[in-house]
Amino acid sequence: MSLNHLDEHDHHYLASLVPPDRISTGQSNLHTHSRDQSRHPAVRPEVVIWPHTTEEIAAILRYADQRHLPVTAWGAGSSLEGNPIPVAGGIVLSFAQMNRILDIRDNDFQVDVQPGVIYKEMNHQLRHTGLFFPPDPGAAATIGGMIANNASGTRTVRYGSTKDYVQQLTVVLADGEIIEIGNRAAKSSSGFDLLHLFVGSEGMLGVVAQATLRLTGIQEEFAWAVATLPTIAAAGRAVFDIRRSGIDPAAIELLAPECIEVINRARQFGLTCSPTLFVELHGPTRQHLADAMQILEEICRNEGCLEFKPGLDRTERDRLVEARHALGEMIAQAHPDHKRVVIDVAVPISTYPEMIAYAREESLKVDAASAYTFGHAGDGNIHLVVGARPKDAQTWQAIDALNSRMVAKALALGGTATGEHGVGIGKIKFMTAEHGPSLAWMRKIKHLFDPNGILNPGKMFPDNE
Amino acid sequence: MSLNHLDEHDHHYLASLVPPDRISTGQSNLHTHSRDQSRHPAVRPEVVIWPHTTEEIAAILRYADQRHLPVTAWGAGSSLEGNPIPVAGGIVLSFAQMNRILDIRDNDFQVDVQPGVIYKEMNHQLRHTGLFFPPDPGAAATIGGMIANNASGTRTVRYGSTKDYVQQLTVVLADGEIIEIGNRAAKSSSGFDLLHLFVGSEGMLGVVAQATLRLTGIQEEFAWAVATLPTIAAAGRAVFDIRRSGIDPAAIELLAPECIEVINRARQFGLTCSPTLFVELHGPTRQHLADAMQILEEICRNEGCLEFKPGLDRTERDRLVEARHALGEMIAQAHPDHKRVVIDVAVPISTYPEMIAYAREESLKVDAASAYTFGHAGDGNIHLVVGARPKDAQTWQAIDALNSRMVAKALALGGTATGEHGVGIGKIKFMTAEHGPSLAWMRKIKHLFDPNGILNPGKMFPDNE
Repeated sequence: MSLNHLDEHDHHYLASLVPPDRISTGQSNLHTHSRDQSRHPAVRPEVVIWPHTTEEIAAILRYADQRHLPVTAWGAGSSLEGNPIPVAGGIVLSFAQMNRILDIRDNDFQVDVQPGVIYKEMNHQLRHTGLFFPPDPGAAATIGGMIANNASGTRTVRYGSTKDYVQQLTVVLADGEIIEIGNRAAKSSSGFDLLHLFVGSEGMLGVVAQATLRLTGIQEEFAWAVATLPTIAAAGRAVFDIRRSGIDPAAIELLAPECIEVINRARQFGLTCSPTLFVELHGPTRQHLADAMQILEEICRNEGCLEFKPGLDRTERDRLVEARHALGEMIAQAHPDHKRVVIDVAVPISTYPEMIAYAREESLKVDAASAYTFGHAGDGNIHLVVGARPKDAQTWQAIDALNSRMVAKALALGGTATGEHGVGIGKIKFMTAEHGPSLAWMRKIKHLFDPNGILNPGKMFPDNE
Repeated sequence: MSLNHLDEHDHHYLASLVPPDRISTGQSNLHTHSRDQSRHPAVRPEVVIWPHTTEEIAAILRYADQRHLPVTAWGAGSSLEGNPIPVAGGIVLSFAQMNRILDIRDNDFQVDVQPGVIYKEMNHQLRHTGLFFPPDPGAAATIGGMIANNASGTRTVRYGSTKDYVQQLTVVLADGEIIEIGNRAAKSSSGFDLLHLFVGSEGMLGVVAQATLRLTGIQEEFAWAVATLPTIAAAGRAVFDIRRSGIDPAAIELLAPECIEVINRARQFGLTCSPTLFVELHGPTRQHLADAMQILEEICRNEGCLEFKPGLDRTERDRLVEARHALGEMIAQAHPDHKRVVIDVAVPISTYPEMIAYAREESLKVDAASAYTFGHAGDGNIHLVVGARPKDAQTWQAIDALNSRMVAKALALGGTATGEHGVGIGKIKFMTAEHGPSLAWMRKIKHLFDPNGILNPGKMFPDNE
């Protein structure tokens, strides 16, 4: 990387672009923006700036590009592969203060937002419209971060990923040029699809300054079920059969027995410690859900289901969802002396039983590690959380090898190295294996949009220039 | 364009790449590949080649790129904006013989196909799996053409466009390099989204040699309704209310009275000649559809519906769908001395009533023209078919002006110049207005992937080099 560090003149110039309370070199601010939720090493930026407008972002980038200063956009820092860690230092652009909902256009099923808005907060504010933005990564992510990462989550099996909900973007390019891409019609065949090029680009092609999101209607009725299966293999087969049945669940989450154990401990659910599926159903009528529930139960019974607990109670459902979302936290509390890595891969759905069986077997081989298998099973997405003592170098070596084996297995099955956490730093080493010759084209596109390599440097590409 | 015409050596060399029965300079073959379904002037290619393999495509492109020979990929020639007309001559690559289904992987809800397969034929062959590929442009389009154009149609309101169903592509780039993009997992956050860059690129960035498509389950039950509304404005409002209601129809087609008239004449339906909505419902149970039908009827009654005819009979439904798909043909037959243009725009759904009212008013101002308004109303997509005698220059001038006004109106409402027919030749002149500065970035991407400009030259960009 031929990038520069900031000199005194740079600091002075940047300070001239925003009021003094929106730029900081304070240690506490630099520290806050030095790491995400992963165990990738913290690197402090040299300055944090909180822009309020597209034009401010453009002015900052224009200058940074001329001076070859690194610029990393920052949402909530909730990513899991080191995606926003400013590994080359430079400028962090925090969107914490560009967090407004600009226009709720419920008549078009759309909302215009600034990138710093937290998606949960946005959905809360949309509630009166009967519409919502479905992608649900669990963490308190910002829309900008979700766009950068093409975030998805528990509801993706039915409702899709962030990429399916982005209509229009205002993007500031590396040299400060402002472009608008997309439109507000429900569909279009006009020109190359620049929109999807920016979604999932991890802030490496441009900085999103405004977004128009598509919304969808909240279904009238919901129901859920907790199904306890005898083995991981049986759970995997049940997931596959549920996907085949056409009941179109809103979530199919798999939890291995060790996950149930920590949930029971943390929330006193008293669930049987065996592989468990949490399934949520959305539908227009109670009858519709009752029919779907019957099919769901039959599938689970066919796989030797030990318990099948259907529910219609929202409080109970909310408790379950909360517990599922808090699982990472519970695992952390169960092993306070461990650091963790989340191995996130996705595979074609027919191979899901094989992939989860592999994850379980391989993780058991790593001595002295804590290992938890769960995932958004309906998408063929698996999360294997493995932890060890930070200084236990031998175990960490084994965990790294496990990570590589998991990715190799997923790729061999036709899957992907990262189902939803992005490439960031952690998945760089698998990009050549996953993408082959097309990786070179991603590099060329990066070079086209960001010839000086100032935007979120050090990510995605091996041997990054 | 600094492109060459083929010389004798070129013909000889290309003839060495495929067997003699798969390359032709016969006038009849050149004529067949000189025009699509639009009224854009025919231009004959200099040679037509029918590749059978990815490697053959690569060998042809490698040579064409060195020699700066134009190459235009050809599916079924069913497009409507001149998209595959080889305006610079050169080579047409016809995919008519690369039309096999390679692997039905119904366990993954996926199918691997060659680009020349006709989507209807493919869906027919998939029927036993209970799965289908939903985008439905009506014409006998090939999958390759649908990918090039991001095709959509009657079912898009519920099921999405072609872009939502492309999982993996084998693409041959301009210089003959073969790349694979995408994977077979239901979701991924790995690297830049090259997949969507190729979908809708109109064969200008590369040539698709193989595709893996996502499939979805055929719903158990269906129902349909024909609703006759008193005015176009009332029909527009009903469309909007149906979209708001959450009943999630599989199709909402609008037909203006003049369309009903030709359908009655061609098929003896005896429908009332007034603005009409054809709505199709898909669902898991009869009860579900009955509930939805009740909501649908209420909405239409609120808009002063003159007739509401619900149906469950598949034969009757198939007759209606066939009639809707044959509408273009019927219009042609009603005015045998007219040539026609299909003005295709899409707007945000809240503005649909305004857009269709505008279309009707403006089209009435064009004397001596035949004009038909219809469209995939649920997506805010409108088709205005306007025809006149080929030599009636004055009327054609008025029609061109009408086309420009329609697009200007759609863009002013936040919509797009082309809802589903692509840019081709016909929409080039609106690209600057629609995309502004981002059009330059589309050009840069074109130049990156195809520096010599050999792939489908003369399309999408104004003043094409």
